[in-house]
Amino acid sequence: MNKMNLSIAIVGATGLVGRTMLTVLEERNFPVGRLKLLASATSVGIKAEFCGKEYMVEELREDSFADVDIALFSAGKTVSLKYAPIAEKAGCIVIDNSSAWRTDPTKPLIVPEVNGETIKDYKGIIANPNCSTIQMLVALKPIHDAFGLKRVIVSTYQSITGAGQKGIDKLNRELEQGIGGVAAEELPIAFNTLFHDISDPAGFSEEEIKMQNETRKILNLPNLPVAVTCVRLPIVGGHGESLNIETEKPITPQAVRELFSGRDDIIVIDDPMNQKYPTVAACAGQDPVYIGRIRQDDTAENGLYLWICADNVRKGAATNAVQIAELFVD
Amino acid sequence: MNKMNLSIAIVGATGLVGRTMLTVLEERNFPVGRLKLLASATSVGIKAEFCGKEYMVEELREDSFADVDIALFSAGKTVSLKYAPIAEKAGCIVIDNSSAWRTDPTKPLIVPEVNGETIKDYKGIIANPNCSTIQMLVALKPIHDAFGLKRVIVSTYQSITGAGQKGIDKLNRELEQGIGGVAAEELPIAFNTLFHDISDPAGFSEEEIKMQNETRKILNLPNLPVAVTCVRLPIVGGHGESLNIETEKPITPQAVRELFSGRDDIIVIDDPMNQKYPTVAACAGQDPVYIGRIRQDDTAENGLYLWICADNVRKGAATNAVQIAELFVD
Repeated sequence: MNKMNLSIAIVGATGLVGRTMLTVLEERNFPVGRLKLLASATSVGIKAEFCGKEYMVEELREDSFADVDIALFSAGKTVSLKYAPIAEKAGCIVIDNSSAWRTDPTKPLIVPEVNGETIKDYKGIIANPNCSTIQMLVALKPIHDAFGLKRVIVSTYQSITGAGQKGIDKLNRELEQGIGGVAAEELPIAFNTLFHDISDPAGFSEEEIKMQNETRKILNLPNLPVAVTCVRLPIVGGHGESLNIETEKPITPQAVRELFSGRDDIIVIDDPMNQKYPTVAACAGQDPVYIGRIRQDDTAENGLYLWICADNVRKGAATNAVQIAELFVD
Repeated sequence: MNKMNLSIAIVGATGLVGRTMLTVLEERNFPVGRLKLLASATSVGIKAEFCGKEYMVEELREDSFADVDIALFSAGKTVSLKYAPIAEKAGCIVIDNSSAWRTDPTKPLIVPEVNGETIKDYKGIIANPNCSTIQMLVALKPIHDAFGLKRVIVSTYQSITGAGQKGIDKLNRELEQGIGGVAAEELPIAFNTLFHDISDPAGFSEEEIKMQNETRKILNLPNLPVAVTCVRLPIVGGHGESLNIETEKPITPQAVRELFSGRDDIIVIDDPMNQKYPTVAACAGQDPVYIGRIRQDDTAENGLYLWICADNVRKGAATNAVQIAELFVD
């Protein structure tokens, strides 16, 4: 594609992820020629700034994609199911942040650092993985390549920003009641632990099933044992993940630290005796995946602990989508 | 002992756990004859009510234990190391909530439902386990008896009340700055994930080491593989724990539900498709251990997921201590 003249559309431009996509495109000097901000009729007329210029949100319609090269979707599954194929037919590369296409075997599911090379000659709908999956796989891919993953056990600590602006609003509303005041709420998020929606008879939440399926698809390891528990918390800035992994080959904390050294997409902060370790708050606005609490897990053969944090709205959504788009620029 | 005439002392009576001990003694109609509230000199003169009568906090001194039958300590490790042996020498049964004596092989470490019978004829210092350990073991003991524990992997979601009143005060202070306002704080707890103090070269926090050692001691399984990651969160009401366990014998969610049924110390809430599961907020002020998200973990032979919640100040501290005292009354 012509680097200087890409026509970009953002579908869901007024949402938390859509707005962050705009920020990230600007920060990374993405070669945006034309920019279209699309959303539902109720958002038409909302303004947004990009590179010093003002843009008006337009209504998403079937004919919105005529001259668009790359469409970044983040408007939920229903919108993606309807409009992504329309955009694809119009000739767009679609990078979709919803869960609509992630498990479709004909659609690539991409974390650029992990499997970006698989879409070299692809054109069509590309799925952006779940936020929790992305940050975990940035950490696990080099480990898999070096030591061979045998089993992954993960418990997540997920930011309320994963529920979008309405999640943040609910938390703020409940916080006004103070500690002890939230008892009247049904399933409050303030000061509490919640789970994501569960509709699976075996008891797994949708988020947990996504992490299992998407991890296997992206790593191309359809039988990898991945045990997942996802918890939503009154935290912001990023998601945290507590992992216990088991590998084929012997693994040590020191070997993993060396594996991650010199990368700018993975930052190891692991000096806990001096209170230095990744926290979700410190991830806010950052793109790297932060790793710490790397410990030998001697309860398993070749076992290791990892604590992984990243900004779920950026690397977990907007930044990863823009990085996928960049694969078509370079 | 004479049921109607027990002389009880609470050491650390003005702290969060000490005050809750008083509440629990009253709620459970513990046969308190005389009551002594002890604390450091700075707290002398503070008043507290017990069964409609007002008590004045007295200064903790070496001669404080002369006529005391049972002394409940919750004033930190340093105070316990100094005064628990003095109380023991004066003839007291000491139930100590600090970590001072927990790993001492000569001192019993007791969760009444789990190993209460081991102190039938004991008199002296008894250690009250770590809050996170207590709730986990209430759940794991029946499972171990029925299926044989082979490996425990746990990631905790711990209430800031575990840091006492000063932890709660820090959270409240930071919350006033709102989401995004805590960046100026060094390691804020509001909206964030933190770890407990770490002084172990292998990278384990003190809380993690406690859970490992105490679990093995209480279950009398010195070699049980216990993999622990402890996380402190801006939550209140209780601690949550995400477990993946492996057992010797085949285990199923249904068998575990049956195992727990009919107990009033373990409440199963596990109807996630109707959004019914344990949360830390709902544990506040409750004594049972709540269990949910019971799922088959097919990433291991005989694997099972558990989510365990309990009020860390009550069952995790004050209630467990009073229940230990009750072993000497019945």
